[in-house]
Amino acid sequence: MKHLLTVSDLDQRELLQILDDATMYEKGQMIWKPSNSMFVSNLFFEASTRTRCSFEMAQHKLGLQIIPFEVMTSSVQKGETLYDTIETLAAIGVQSVVIRHPEDEYYKKLQHEVSIPIINAGDGCGQHPTQCLLDLMTIRQEFGSFNGLNVAIIGDLRHSRVAKSNAEMLTKLGANVYLSGPKEWQDHSNICGHYVEMDEAIEIADVVMLLRIQLERHNEAPHSLNNTYHEKYGLTIEREKRMKKGSIIMHPAPVNRGVEIADELVECNRSRIFKQMKNGVFVRMAVLARSLQSVERGMTHDNYHQKWHMAK
Amino acid sequence: MKHLLTVSDLDQRELLQILDDATMYEKGQMIWKPSNSMFVSNLFFEASTRTRCSFEMAQHKLGLQIIPFEVMTSSVQKGETLYDTIETLAAIGVQSVVIRHPEDEYYKKLQHEVSIPIINAGDGCGQHPTQCLLDLMTIRQEFGSFNGLNVAIIGDLRHSRVAKSNAEMLTKLGANVYLSGPKEWQDHSNICGHYVEMDEAIEIADVVMLLRIQLERHNEAPHSLNNTYHEKYGLTIEREKRMKKGSIIMHPAPVNRGVEIADELVECNRSRIFKQMKNGVFVRMAVLARSLQSVERGMTHDNYHQKWHMAK
Amino acid sequence: MKHLLTVSDLDQRELLQILDDATMYEKGQMIWKPSNSMFVSNLFFEASTRTRCSFEMAQHKLGLQIIPFEVMTSSVQKGETLYDTIETLAAIGVQSVVIRHPEDEYYKKLQHEVSIPIINAGDGCGQHPTQCLLDLMTIRQEFGSFNGLNVAIIGDLRHSRVAKSNAEMLTKLGANVYLSGPKEWQDHSNICGHYVEMDEAIEIADVVMLLRIQLERHNEAPHSLNNTYHEKYGLTIEREKRMKKGSIIMHPAPVNRGVEIADELVECNRSRIFKQMKNGVFVRMAVLARSLQSVERGMTHDNYHQKWHMAK
Repeated sequence: MKHLLTVSDLDQRELLQILDDATMYEKGQMIWKPSNSMFVSNLFFEASTRTRCSFEMAQHKLGLQIIPFEVMTSSVQKGETLYDTIETLAAIGVQSVVIRHPEDEYYKKLQHEVSIPIINAGDGCGQHPTQCLLDLMTIRQEFGSFNGLNVAIIGDLRHSRVAKSNAEMLTKLGANVYLSGPKEWQDHSNICGHYVEMDEAIEIADVVMLLRIQLERHNEAPHSLNNTYHEKYGLTIEREKRMKKGSIIMHPAPVNRGVEIADELVECNRSRIFKQMKNGVFVRMAVLARSLQSVERGMTHDNYHQKWHMAK
Repeated sequence: MKHLLTVSDLDQRELLQILDDATMYEKGQMIWKPSNSMFVSNLFFEASTRTRCSFEMAQHKLGLQIIPFEVMTSSVQKGETLYDTIETLAAIGVQSVVIRHPEDEYYKKLQHEVSIPIINAGDGCGQHPTQCLLDLMTIRQEFGSFNGLNVAIIGDLRHSRVAKSNAEMLTKLGANVYLSGPKEWQDHSNICGHYVEMDEAIEIADVVMLLRIQLERHNEAPHSLNNTYHEKYGLTIEREKRMKKGSIIMHPAPVNRGVEIADELVECNRSRIFKQMKNGVFVRMAVLARSLQSVERGMTHDNYHQKWHMAK
Repeated sequence: MKHLLTVSDLDQRELLQILDDATMYEKGQMIWKPSNSMFVSNLFFEASTRTRCSFEMAQHKLGLQIIPFEVMTSSVQKGETLYDTIETLAAIGVQSVVIRHPEDEYYKKLQHEVSIPIINAGDGCGQHPTQCLLDLMTIRQEFGSFNGLNVAIIGDLRHSRVAKSNAEMLTKLGANVYLSGPKEWQDHSNICGHYVEMDEAIEIADVVMLLRIQLERHNEAPHSLNNTYHEKYGLTIEREKRMKKGSIIMHPAPVNRGVEIADELVECNRSRIFKQMKNGVFVRMAVLARSLQSVERGMTHDNYHQKWHMAK
């Protein structure tokens, strides 16, 4: 069985293989469908449009069957544990679950107990592995490799589940990671990278990766943040002009327009924000397919023959 | 790209063409399926059973794939704008969206900005074009044409999104529109038609079209309404007896039984209320197909060849 | 048309036929798909994971098309009655509805009025026929027949919709039913069986059937219950040791771990709790198929030819 819980679980070969698969799905050069009907379920304990719809789209494109699950109308409301919920779905015939959950490392104990693979779609302030993979795909698409690339990650470093994984993987893959953001949101113990001033970050970066202010995870009043944040740490129209030639802008979205980035820049030439969303579908197809192939192999036990079919 | 935002956008030829298509779908004389998988999403920001399930049924019957979207569990909860939500869905691969929204003309700015067609499933107190089309289909089914027909629209004229479009289109198509209802709900600036007394309306009408009291849009206590409304403006058992031979009763539903119409009349011989719901599926098939055909043509650019296939 | 509202509606031949069908579905010895697309809808007015997902899985496996219905975003919020909701779905093309509702015997009047079959997925403190059927399937799987079997039903007898139907059907099928549980939750008028002390029940039973404490239906504070309940009426580790050789443990779930049953016993060798969930899918396939076959026959009127196809 093959969970995907953190990107750190992936060795470099596996990670690049997923990016290769995603690229082949994007170009229509690879098709995988399960040999028999396969069933998945999406358990979202937090609000989501992008990630949830993107997984659903990937599942449709792989020809998977989706058993709908809504937290608000489920037995979670009667106090059922996450383990019992997953094993119930497994008993009913669900073969893999995608989970987003507000608790950091909700999967810690679960991963050794459940009988079907979990794909982590975000855990609290922890990780969001498919977001990291789609970010890496978007960067590789643009620059061909990661080696020597300057990537500036800017904003709410402490609460972001994107920042940590991206900083770690980019560093492993040879990029130089620069960090910037308000002092009270810096995170010196968990994120690898060099802290620099905002204006320096903008000028040296090949990739300006803005983070979302997770207003829903803060206790401060959003207004007091918005007023000053854009001037100090946002990508203003003026700052964009000082970006390097050929450099790009990324943001995991949803964007707080006029806060992390000027409204006018969200869809500017440098922006890859909607491209990231497009790539998300292909990355999730690659991840789901690998996970379900491991289930298929498990089901037939001695049948390890290759299930991948190349499109002509 | 082809939005459907208001019925006024349709010229008479187009409108009648949609009714013809719907009739052919109803009779099983027309089949259209997209040549490749096509994806749609239904964004309902207001409660709905009829319209929502009817669109889902139409989508199933056309073989479309539906990416589920629930406002309550989406990033709308994090403050994402409608524009960003639609463009996110578009980036992920959704090719048309059906939207119901509490804001009048929510589409006003959007329609020039979004990259996929919007089908309006109701905007505030504004329009509800597929409801208008299904009403027209139901009337034409009964009487063959609209010319010279007397249609009485009765009730909460000001808050109704059905009244305005129906009055406008029926007048254009040659019917005589009569209006009746409480003074405080009359709307002399926006609705075309002759105001008459309730009892006169009942006696001259070929079609008695009752409007729903949109209790959820009123501030008054529903009880005070219900007590007197039925006697004054409801279709009572006594009033039904004075209706013309061959005349029919319509209501967009959900019906407040015993308020707009006597409980016993909801499914009486004259009533076309459930027939309206049946027709809704076919009208929506016609509208969705036209919208997605425009997307298909856009995708292939120089391929404007006819995608409609007649069933043998 | 063929509702399934209570198990008492089924004569013994019909009941055993459903269990036979379910067993054939389980073994892959029977396949039924509707000859044309058939549409169903699941109306859950109470929280559920197991029952709801299990019906969805059964529907997928039968190749049915599901029109999603969410109470919270439906016109039920505008006061639409259950009758009008069902008839609306029927008008739109839905051919059978699965309903869970908090009101006892919500179907009482409905069943003579609606135009499509209802499958009851639980009514208040009333019945839950497919749960009863899956329990019977699980017992028959284990022991081959019901004759002379000792079945102890333990716990919240009064609020449980499982206890009543199971006690009635098991008695009819020749089993001896023993009941145990807190005095204030006993129900001498509605449930057939012999009341015995907890420790006696455990020792004589071939089947120890634990009931869920429906905390959501009680007014007492759950903590005061939990503290003493497990010692007095729960299946403790110590009690399990005194169970008969070959006897099994059942529970309709969701389990309150450490209350009705010790955490460690939920997945022990004797436990059939997850097996019950697996069987639920097959029982629901059998029930849905029978219900829809009656619709199919109704549709063609003079065509009563057998629609069941045996798999080779």
